[in-house]
Amino acid sequence: MTATPTPRVTIRDVAARAGVSKGAVSLAFNHKPGLSEATRDRIFRAARELGWAPNLTARTLAGSRVDVVGLAVCRPARMLGLEPWYMEFVSGVESVLAEHSCSLLLRLVRSMDEELRVQEAWWRGRQVGGSILVDFQAGDPRVGLVEGLGLPVVAVGHPSLTGGLPSVWTDDATAVTEAVRYLAALGHRRIARVGGAAALGHTAIRTAAFDEAAGALELAGAWQVATDFSGDAGARATRSLLTAAVPDRPTAIVYDNDIMAVAGLSVAAEMGLRVPEDVSLLAWDDSQLCRLTHPTLSAMSHDVHGFGAEVARTLFGVITAEGTAGSHPVPTPVLTPRGSTAPPKV
Amino acid sequence: MTATPTPRVTIRDVAARAGVSKGAVSLAFNHKPGLSEATRDRIFRAARELGWAPNLTARTLAGSRVDVVGLAVCRPARMLGLEPWYMEFVSGVESVLAEHSCSLLLRLVRSMDEELRVQEAWWRGRQVGGSILVDFQAGDPRVGLVEGLGLPVVAVGHPSLTGGLPSVWTDDATAVTEAVRYLAALGHRRIARVGGAAALGHTAIRTAAFDEAAGALELAGAWQVATDFSGDAGARATRSLLTAAVPDRPTAIVYDNDIMAVAGLSVAAEMGLRVPEDVSLLAWDDSQLCRLTHPTLSAMSHDVHGFGAEVARTLFGVITAEGTAGSHPVPTPVLTPRGSTAPPKV
Repeated sequence: MTATPTPRVTIRDVAARAGVSKGAVSLAFNHKPGLSEATRDRIFRAARELGWAPNLTARTLAGSRVDVVGLAVCRPARMLGLEPWYMEFVSGVESVLAEHSCSLLLRLVRSMDEELRVQEAWWRGRQVGGSILVDFQAGDPRVGLVEGLGLPVVAVGHPSLTGGLPSVWTDDATAVTEAVRYLAALGHRRIARVGGAAALGHTAIRTAAFDEAAGALELAGAWQVATDFSGDAGARATRSLLTAAVPDRPTAIVYDNDIMAVAGLSVAAEMGLRVPEDVSLLAWDDSQLCRLTHPTLSAMSHDVHGFGAEVARTLFGVITAEGTAGSHPVPTPVLTPRGSTAPPKV
Repeated sequence: MTATPTPRVTIRDVAARAGVSKGAVSLAFNHKPGLSEATRDRIFRAARELGWAPNLTARTLAGSRVDVVGLAVCRPARMLGLEPWYMEFVSGVESVLAEHSCSLLLRLVRSMDEELRVQEAWWRGRQVGGSILVDFQAGDPRVGLVEGLGLPVVAVGHPSLTGGLPSVWTDDATAVTEAVRYLAALGHRRIARVGGAAALGHTAIRTAAFDEAAGALELAGAWQVATDFSGDAGARATRSLLTAAVPDRPTAIVYDNDIMAVAGLSVAAEMGLRVPEDVSLLAWDDSQLCRLTHPTLSAMSHDVHGFGAEVARTLFGVITAEGTAGSHPVPTPVLTPRGSTAPPKV
């Protein structure tokens, strides 16, 4: 009943099947430049079909496990299931780990202190070859811990928050500015933002950028509301913004994720307001949800799956000490106009 | 910069803070009966506030790690991020693991053979104390592997598929029958089902139950379409069902998850059909999405988060050999009527 053992597959077999050199297979699996997308895909497909994965262990820090990557998340369990961002991010991480036959060690923690203990135990217990660190805050204590331990990590966050750790980030400030400028260019003078959790560093960056853009454009009204990223919180925030009398009501709302924008769309309908005629809504992240609503949601599109994949690739570079990229941003979210944004009624 | 060491917290401290005996704390963490929900909550809250977790290791199979639970998933990485079910399930599992300071080792595999190799390597390498097995198929080879290894597992699937392994499941057949009966009771005589992946055992169970219910009710028309659970596939299936001329068109559609139902709602709007006047839609699982659309979606409500939590609790019982529950179903999905179902126009 167990799997039949198969003859051992080598890098040579993968190269032969893909019609490339062994060196090309090595380039592909080390995520180095010099191969076309098509060749890279052919190599990964050949490896998948043969069930081959590179043996990273041979190349790493003495004795540490590298077939496992750690990720500790400090959010309520319930929230993890409600926020499409996390699952998209994890699926992107897993897509790269799977190419290397690696697993993700996922842990929910209740506090920063618990994450510090968990990361230290994982590394000292040789349970992980490296970790992905998320949700950075100002003065984050993980920076000191990681340096003390020599734990290979990639920090998901802007370099202003991650204290010199190898980092991959999104340029949130530029994206928020573009969102506000777009709505202003449509003629909106009263714009609100339904933001994420106030304690998170990237939320603070977005909040500051929104204020700055609103000031530079001399908007007549600018509101920001902090939430916990849930649809229910997005609905509450939207209801509160839209119940004000007309001159004090925003004509456009930008959301920090897409589940809150979907909730906002529903609140507008419940209040008898037409989207986009009475109020424009702009989502963030742009998972498949934004194309499934009616009207479809305009969004700041961000390839969260690709972001997760890039973080995992960077971590492999750090672990194998072959990474040359160092800290770098992923592509900035771009505006995808759909049916939920339009000029305000005069 | 590292965490300040705190005085060691014991079970006695937790009991004192919660105002209960040490025995009650033990009952709560072993998920045994005999405590009210309120007491149980108070104990978990006290433990959380004190940062205490029971030391399971002392009670387990010699030398195996139990602070890690394995989960291998054979789906494309992209799909994992698109299907709310998985993240809800994982969040439920994590909610119980977090109470025990345990982590989830998550691995995407490309084939059943790869999962067999992964589970064996995890167990022999003492990387997991037990595993959660999902997506059972007829004649599943994991049954033999698990028995051979003595790996503690909980199988997520109906006992007809899981070959005597400790199992936790949903009674899909009863739920499908109830869904069809409800639509028929509203007066619908032409009903379609947009189902999940045909290879999965629970999809086959739903398909058979739908056919049987349609036959017993002598429906004038009954259609079933298999998909990959994605919103795009749900939209395509809906479009194809609703483009038929009226006498060959369903007046009600039931979906195997909620993202496909949201997509179906959008397709109806795009085709100028009113929901529920022209077509009734019934979702499944009922994540927050169903309450965020307009109209809100009627659904077969299923506490997927609670399902994941129950699976994790059962696995702890199996690992510590203290479990008394054995195989058992979780509550059957119940009908939650909202705005997307109504009698058909005569």
